[in-house]
Amino acid sequence: MSSTGTAGTGTITVAADNLRAVTADLFERAGMPAEDAAFMGECLVDADLRGVHSHGTRYATSYVSALRSGNWNPRPQIQTVRERGATVLLDGDAGAGHLIGRHAMRLAIDKAREFGTSTVSVRNSTHCGAMAYYTQMAADAGCIGFAATNAGVRMAPWGGADPLVALNPLSWAAPTDRGWAVALDMATSVVAGNKLAVARERGEKIPLGWALDEHGNPTDDPEAGMRGLLLPVGGAKGYGMAVCLDILTGVLSGGRFGAGLGGPGAAQIYQAIDIDSFIPLDEFRGRMGQLIDQLKSSRLAPGSSGIFLPGEIEHTLKQQRLREGIPMTAVVVEEINQMARELGSSQQVTPYDA
Amino acid sequence: MSSTGTAGTGTITVAADNLRAVTADLFERAGMPAEDAAFMGECLVDADLRGVHSHGTRYATSYVSALRSGNWNPRPQIQTVRERGATVLLDGDAGAGHLIGRHAMRLAIDKAREFGTSTVSVRNSTHCGAMAYYTQMAADAGCIGFAATNAGVRMAPWGGADPLVALNPLSWAAPTDRGWAVALDMATSVVAGNKLAVARERGEKIPLGWALDEHGNPTDDPEAGMRGLLLPVGGAKGYGMAVCLDILTGVLSGGRFGAGLGGPGAAQIYQAIDIDSFIPLDEFRGRMGQLIDQLKSSRLAPGSSGIFLPGEIEHTLKQQRLREGIPMTAVVVEEINQMARELGSSQQVTPYDA
Repeated sequence: MSSTGTAGTGTITVAADNLRAVTADLFERAGMPAEDAAFMGECLVDADLRGVHSHGTRYATSYVSALRSGNWNPRPQIQTVRERGATVLLDGDAGAGHLIGRHAMRLAIDKAREFGTSTVSVRNSTHCGAMAYYTQMAADAGCIGFAATNAGVRMAPWGGADPLVALNPLSWAAPTDRGWAVALDMATSVVAGNKLAVARERGEKIPLGWALDEHGNPTDDPEAGMRGLLLPVGGAKGYGMAVCLDILTGVLSGGRFGAGLGGPGAAQIYQAIDIDSFIPLDEFRGRMGQLIDQLKSSRLAPGSSGIFLPGEIEHTLKQQRLREGIPMTAVVVEEINQMARELGSSQQVTPYDA
Repeated sequence: MSSTGTAGTGTITVAADNLRAVTADLFERAGMPAEDAAFMGECLVDADLRGVHSHGTRYATSYVSALRSGNWNPRPQIQTVRERGATVLLDGDAGAGHLIGRHAMRLAIDKAREFGTSTVSVRNSTHCGAMAYYTQMAADAGCIGFAATNAGVRMAPWGGADPLVALNPLSWAAPTDRGWAVALDMATSVVAGNKLAVARERGEKIPLGWALDEHGNPTDDPEAGMRGLLLPVGGAKGYGMAVCLDILTGVLSGGRFGAGLGGPGAAQIYQAIDIDSFIPLDEFRGRMGQLIDQLKSSRLAPGSSGIFLPGEIEHTLKQQRLREGIPMTAVVVEEINQMARELGSSQQVTPYDA
């Protein structure tokens, strides 16, 4: 329970099923087909379950507003612009990036099964949430998945002072011999931009080193950081990665790139590598198990709570939250419930333990 | 000119041609065919020209020692273990990783031309130098190149205290409308391990935050850092990337992975994406030009010397050093010359301006 005493900044624990149903209903009322709306609920609540609230249902109301205003297309015709060998270029028709991402990674997996490896490039897409959702689809299909998107322009080029670089995230995922996939999902900024929004919602300060204010000074105020610049991870390295990921997504796709160049929307890349084309999948899983066991055999650093693989903490949290409910920022739940009422729904997100 | 006054720690400026010829001669005398030896000279001197001394001819004597001791195979039969669609699995036969990398990226480019995208996985390889050499081969061929290798085990898992994670580097490169490719090449540690060796050779201290000593304490002594642990870039993010790159190289290839698991040697991945399979290469180059111009339009941060794309400083330095010579650590030149004499060569690296 985190609260500053301000109304609406507390935490409410909700059931995943309830949150999923209300979220899906919002998207259906905004014009999406029922199956697509259900997927939006599934995908956003999955992020909340995994503790990735920065990409969870806190986005639902702004997505629904984008659908209702016509900025997003509730019934996109995702077009194959070009298909050659193990590659596909898609136009997302300004649909929800989540639906486009699912479609693109399904194609990437099919192509990887046929050719051993694949690249699907996407233009005219929108925000697609947590990239690990899609790379885990690949891992579940016996592939190594890679995905990246271009994102909000919130960083300066290294050595510069103007916001011209997006904090483009990347994700890799691979299957293991455990009940979960290794799944890395990271922005090329020190932190994802909406971690500042989450801190602001919770009334918390942010650590110095995450952001600069609009005058270029270090700040611990999330509001000031949101008006200013985010810092790239590892300085020039994070800047370089952000540029390369913009090339792999925006420049390659023929869609939006840089700071507002090449048109509206967002661009993504989805790749799959079929493991069986290299070594038998069972052997790969066994080797992953050896790797995991070796990493976990390390002595702990002082103050450490343990050694974890990328995605492992998120998986464990998801299992716990499926049983015990999801602690949600109250203001986010209130926004969802208010929009549900506005759209004529009788469904509401309610406390799990009420 | 950097010198502590100790004999051999100064800098000598040498001509690229001279350094290339003496280096190549060493490799030929160690048993390599002449063409392969010439490539080793070309590849290592290219790193020195680009200012990447940590992966340049300072490795030549240890490579030659590995060839003479039988740890490296001077005449490897690089085997295609498996070929399926757009993928190839190679066994490097313990040859120099540079030769294997060139072979693998050539295959990756051929496969990308045929299928639009490709993945070449390599096991039983060795140290392959600066990864940007290979990704730039792809960029020169109209592709986006990706390469990674597993490397020396010098980091702890995040939260751990034992050296179990390698500082696996990655590289992406893409063509532009300028005379150079955008080419990122970065280790997943804060700095590449052999930057510590370069600092030690030069008698310089290292910044705090690069390394821990063998007791886990921060250190500015490169010698102590070399005995201790390197720190991952961005903390958990760099650790996660290092693990994922080990999966993409070692685990997938069936070769060495983790800390000494799966056998000896090193494992690599080489990927190419044929740009023309998505948008026309000329259009891609034009978009890259727009991106570069936009980044360079940024106001400069206080104290900044300018905005540069990944690989741009290295390209500019290479052009300058081809004209003016390469400033080399004297001790490295002495080691090369001494080995040349030991192997019965009359060739020596001599000061360019002597």
